[in-house]
Amino acid sequence: MNQVERIGVSLDKKLLSAFDKLITKQGYPNRSEAIRDLIRRQLSETRLQNPKSKAVAAVFLVYDHHAAGLAKKLIQLQHGHLLKTISSLHIHINPADCLEVIVLRGKVAEITKMADKITSFKGVKLSKVNLICVDPAPG
Amino acid sequence: MNQVERIGVSLDKKLLSAFDKLITKQGYPNRSEAIRDLIRRQLSETRLQNPKSKAVAAVFLVYDHHAAGLAKKLIQLQHGHLLKTISSLHIHINPADCLEVIVLRGKVAEITKMADKITSFKGVKLSKVNLICVDPAPG
Amino acid sequence: MNQVERIGVSLDKKLLSAFDKLITKQGYPNRSEAIRDLIRRQLSETRLQNPKSKAVAAVFLVYDHHAAGLAKKLIQLQHGHLLKTISSLHIHINPADCLEVIVLRGKVAEITKMADKITSFKGVKLSKVNLICVDPAPG
Amino acid sequence: MNQVERIGVSLDKKLLSAFDKLITKQGYPNRSEAIRDLIRRQLSETRLQNPKSKAVAAVFLVYDHHAAGLAKKLIQLQHGHLLKTISSLHIHINPADCLEVIVLRGKVAEITKMADKITSFKGVKLSKVNLICVDPAPG
Repeated sequence: MNQVERIGVSLDKKLLSAFDKLITKQGYPNRSEAIRDLIRRQLSETRLQNPKSKAVAAVFLVYDHHAAGLAKKLIQLQHGHLLKTISSLHIHINPADCLEVIVLRGKVAEITKMADKITSFKGVKLSKVNLICVDPAPG
Repeated sequence: MNQVERIGVSLDKKLLSAFDKLITKQGYPNRSEAIRDLIRRQLSETRLQNPKSKAVAAVFLVYDHHAAGLAKKLIQLQHGHLLKTISSLHIHINPADCLEVIVLRGKVAEITKMADKITSFKGVKLSKVNLICVDPAPG
Repeated sequence: MNQVERIGVSLDKKLLSAFDKLITKQGYPNRSEAIRDLIRRQLSETRLQNPKSKAVAAVFLVYDHHAAGLAKKLIQLQHGHLLKTISSLHIHINPADCLEVIVLRGKVAEITKMADKITSFKGVKLSKVNLICVDPAPG
Repeated sequence: MNQVERIGVSLDKKLLSAFDKLITKQGYPNRSEAIRDLIRRQLSETRLQNPKSKAVAAVFLVYDHHAAGLAKKLIQLQHGHLLKTISSLHIHINPADCLEVIVLRGKVAEITKMADKITSFKGVKLSKVNLICVDPAPG
């Protein structure tokens, strides 16, 4: 098991009371959990600024499944990057459009490049990429 | 089939040449496709500013599957919001951590609230939410 | 003077060590200061999701000062929104382009609308808006 | 004067009509101006992903002017980075707090580092950095 430390944080009464109100609304069981989340997010964001950091990404795209050859191109691209694509999820959101979430693993710069490629395919209407740095993934 | 229109756009030679270079690098087959993507993204972003817009979201979270009761809480939350959760994808990223992508449908404000709730659970280490407005989803 | 409280935060040794490394690199004198900054940022971001929150914004724009009538339109817009514009800063960044930072005060939704208006002027090449919620501004 | 080119863009009637509605609301005089803005923003965002790109930044910070020595530290930092700081704007937003906008010029990675340093000073309550790539700044 991981070792836990306890640190002290000083802060203004008014700031603390605003924070307590926010985290209660968000549903946090206690301040430590909320502060740990803020710290982890900050660490992840800082690492993502380095194009060489290892990350896991979810490429989130909406596409028209009538677009000729698109599904095939998406599958080829995923297989051509076998080491990076982990899994994908496909959802029919309306008669014409599909939502696909493709989860990739790789360096920030490589993921960005592959995501650009996917976005550029004819038939892909919208896309977004979410990156999270997981290595190292401190507790 | 949808009707297609053709519009003219004037732009500075230097701006056009920088754009051409960028979209070639990104892999676009032509300018129209790249410009349609810029337009769709702008429309989606504008709609997302309205808490009442309908959206599809991917909540992307990393959690420690040893955390007592977390998996159960995540499943209960999804079932309690049956109309909103569409599907989810679960990936083991290292011995301790799982990545889960939960796809939801609902109003921007409701999705944000549910995502806050998920993020606040003990054991959830990192999370991000990606929203895309799909209704109306112009071609 | 404001009253200060001291709270305890438990966190995993590895997470704490990664955080200590980051904040040393960023230049923080101690953990409390870094954690207070994370808390304030989180509070500000949450408030900005509400279109009715009061905010201060910096509209940051690059424009071609040769564009006919643009400087005049920018000034008129600022005067027409007298209560909202606080100040502005003008910088010549190259022979053709100026950078202007316009600081506004108002509700999130109103600021967004005025910023859209400014961005849409012919001659404005690039723009960004930075919003910070300052009311209430906990210590 | 710069040379202007005219290109044709094909797009779905429904997408065009949604775009027309949006840009009318935003105040654009015509589609070309709105599309040029989308292109410039995309170019700027892509360049900002490269830590070596040259950029202009506005560091936007809220600080407590009672904080001992802070104003002095901010001025020293700006003078120590003389080549990068172009100008700054100072605004009193309430009895305790000041808003300062510091405009810098430099490489993306250097600006980020200096901004981190500023944010870490005791007394700085909130900060954001806005970067725009202006070199080359296509028309």
